[in-house]
Amino acid sequence: MTSANRPARRGTHATDADARMALSLLVEPGDPRLVQWVREHDPAGLLEVVRDGSRRSRLEVPHAWLEGAARLDRAVSSARARSEAHGLRWVVPGDAAWPAALDDLDHVEPLGGSTGAPLGLWVRGPGDLASLVEHGIAVVGARSCTAYGSDCASEIAADVADQGGTVVSGAAFGIDAAAHRGALVQDRPTVAVLACGADVEYPRTHAALLQRIAQDGLVVSEQAPGQVAMRSRFLTRNRIIAGLTVGTVVVEAARRSGSLNTLNWADALGRVTMAVPGPVTSQQSAGVHQALRDGRAVLVTNGREVLDAVAGVSADVPERVRPSDTDHDRLGGLARRVLDALSFTEARSTADVAVAARGSRADVADLLAGLERQGWCARVGDRWLVLPRGASIAARRPVTLGP
Amino acid sequence: MTSANRPARRGTHATDADARMALSLLVEPGDPRLVQWVREHDPAGLLEVVRDGSRRSRLEVPHAWLEGAARLDRAVSSARARSEAHGLRWVVPGDAAWPAALDDLDHVEPLGGSTGAPLGLWVRGPGDLASLVEHGIAVVGARSCTAYGSDCASEIAADVADQGGTVVSGAAFGIDAAAHRGALVQDRPTVAVLACGADVEYPRTHAALLQRIAQDGLVVSEQAPGQVAMRSRFLTRNRIIAGLTVGTVVVEAARRSGSLNTLNWADALGRVTMAVPGPVTSQQSAGVHQALRDGRAVLVTNGREVLDAVAGVSADVPERVRPSDTDHDRLGGLARRVLDALSFTEARSTADVAVAARGSRADVADLLAGLERQGWCARVGDRWLVLPRGASIAARRPVTLGP
Repeated sequence: MTSANRPARRGTHATDADARMALSLLVEPGDPRLVQWVREHDPAGLLEVVRDGSRRSRLEVPHAWLEGAARLDRAVSSARARSEAHGLRWVVPGDAAWPAALDDLDHVEPLGGSTGAPLGLWVRGPGDLASLVEHGIAVVGARSCTAYGSDCASEIAADVADQGGTVVSGAAFGIDAAAHRGALVQDRPTVAVLACGADVEYPRTHAALLQRIAQDGLVVSEQAPGQVAMRSRFLTRNRIIAGLTVGTVVVEAARRSGSLNTLNWADALGRVTMAVPGPVTSQQSAGVHQALRDGRAVLVTNGREVLDAVAGVSADVPERVRPSDTDHDRLGGLARRVLDALSFTEARSTADVAVAARGSRADVADLLAGLERQGWCARVGDRWLVLPRGASIAARRPVTLGP
Repeated sequence: MTSANRPARRGTHATDADARMALSLLVEPGDPRLVQWVREHDPAGLLEVVRDGSRRSRLEVPHAWLEGAARLDRAVSSARARSEAHGLRWVVPGDAAWPAALDDLDHVEPLGGSTGAPLGLWVRGPGDLASLVEHGIAVVGARSCTAYGSDCASEIAADVADQGGTVVSGAAFGIDAAAHRGALVQDRPTVAVLACGADVEYPRTHAALLQRIAQDGLVVSEQAPGQVAMRSRFLTRNRIIAGLTVGTVVVEAARRSGSLNTLNWADALGRVTMAVPGPVTSQQSAGVHQALRDGRAVLVTNGREVLDAVAGVSADVPERVRPSDTDHDRLGGLARRVLDALSFTEARSTADVAVAARGSRADVADLLAGLERQGWCARVGDRWLVLPRGASIAARRPVTLGP
């Protein structure tokens, strides 16, 4: 349960944000253990456990975390100093700028070893993250793209931005940069999610692009200021690009390309997955064509079709069955634990859910039936799936056109 | 009921072939009225009716047919002379070389004003039509194709031909010619279906290509020898390309391109429909992408995927439910009329079928239930569809690889 889902309590919120920042400096973002531990103890409680080595045995806190805890105060001061020098803000669940859709990540099985909503995000730039990504569209693809791919990415991004969508990408060479530039050419804000600190200019040759993005939009990262990009962090970062947006478009991807990883995240999150075809003779389109053949993405050829695909989702779910954040606040403790114990993709039995939620089987069975009626979860045979909530609110509402 | 479906009777068969030839010279091929009239009177009977103007009122034989009947003997002699001069053969239902799959066309609603199995086909070349098209794959597309499209068509056709499929196309400029050439480069026979007489070298610049096709494969047409190509005849011809093959691949088609017409025929016939994507910036791929987006075709990028798509259909229908031609011969007259009254695409009520088949409603209801058990037709709510028979035999069997 993240703090976003509790009634905001002024006093504890500052502590929560600080605890989240400290934890994020201690634990590699995306560590799947955080999902359960933050759920069981709130961030401040978890931080206390880690700082107090004596309680180590119960949680089996990794040795590295305990070691890091000793140097934590220095790490926090350093992050704060860098953050101030580069004009970063630390946004956490419970803040108005926190996009509720990210919480969906707490229900997704690990992909490539990571999962979970980020503890918080460092943001650079004047934009309001939650408002910007309400109609966020991820446009991602190969670094070593062709001129065709880069043209497509810019055109589609310009179209999407022009019609009120926010282009979200990773500021990498190739398709990512072309997508950001397409939005910027229309003078529309765009959001870059980095695998390094939000203050780090990486890739180096994109320093000017990153500055331009941060001018009207946002440069975002869950990595602490000053952190460098590493191979594993790109994959971990991709879950945030997918989680922030209502749909992901892949423009050019070779087979086994990293940009298909973002498509997989989007798919696991119940977001709209889209792909732009290209010449069948191009290796840079082979991964895209495979995804289309496998039914893992719908074929789109321009920005209008992207927005139509995203808007189309709304027709499937009647308005009344979409629970809101306020509805979630009204749920009891066991009901919340029951929802937390469910996954989007892997249906679970009532018995398993009861164990995970620490409730009696009879109570859990009753609650599941009630939660199903309210649109929180769905029955699959005698098993249960949770329905995407952030996604259902953002993705299932038609994109409003215009600025 | 075509003569293919009756036990062959030596004596009448020659008459039937002659009557079909005469009728095909009298009536524009694809005229939808032929389907019903040939069903009610056999071809020889229908020819008699047309020749005998006095019975005109009952059938409402068009004035043009009656006029044509007066000049028919001359037309037949002339067609026979041209046929002989150019080495054509006249192949009709009941001949071993007649592909049973073509009979599926008698169950399809008119598209662009024409439908129905051809009365017969003029063929030029040494190939056996039925054997060649048993694993026939139509590869069609834009006349004004790009170099990309023509490369794709040749590559895919070469792949398909190399693995034992027969490439069927229309010998037009662009994709069609590239497809034939792809097969010929592998020294595999290919089948060209023309909109003019099978002896006519059209387009003129393809004279050498047509000769090369006729050397090992076949040049085929339902148009009489010497007939010229006309706009409407291309659309009528497309139904034969789709009907002869187990699947149709479109390589490049602008929106509203004629090659999408072949895809529509294939779809109406229950054949496998496939399309090759291209750059989204190319107008010549816009129609293909639209078909893929509409779910009217599956995306393929090479010949292996084409053959996989065609073979995949076989998994759907267990061997035992596929009726054979011999089974059809064993059906009673009312059962045959009931099947003839059904469509592939538009489910019909028992009452409507009873009227069309001239049977009592109770008899027809019993027959439909029995025919459903034998795999001839399918129930859709309280209505009925006929199942593709030629298609079910040819398309649903996996393509055997090798020569």
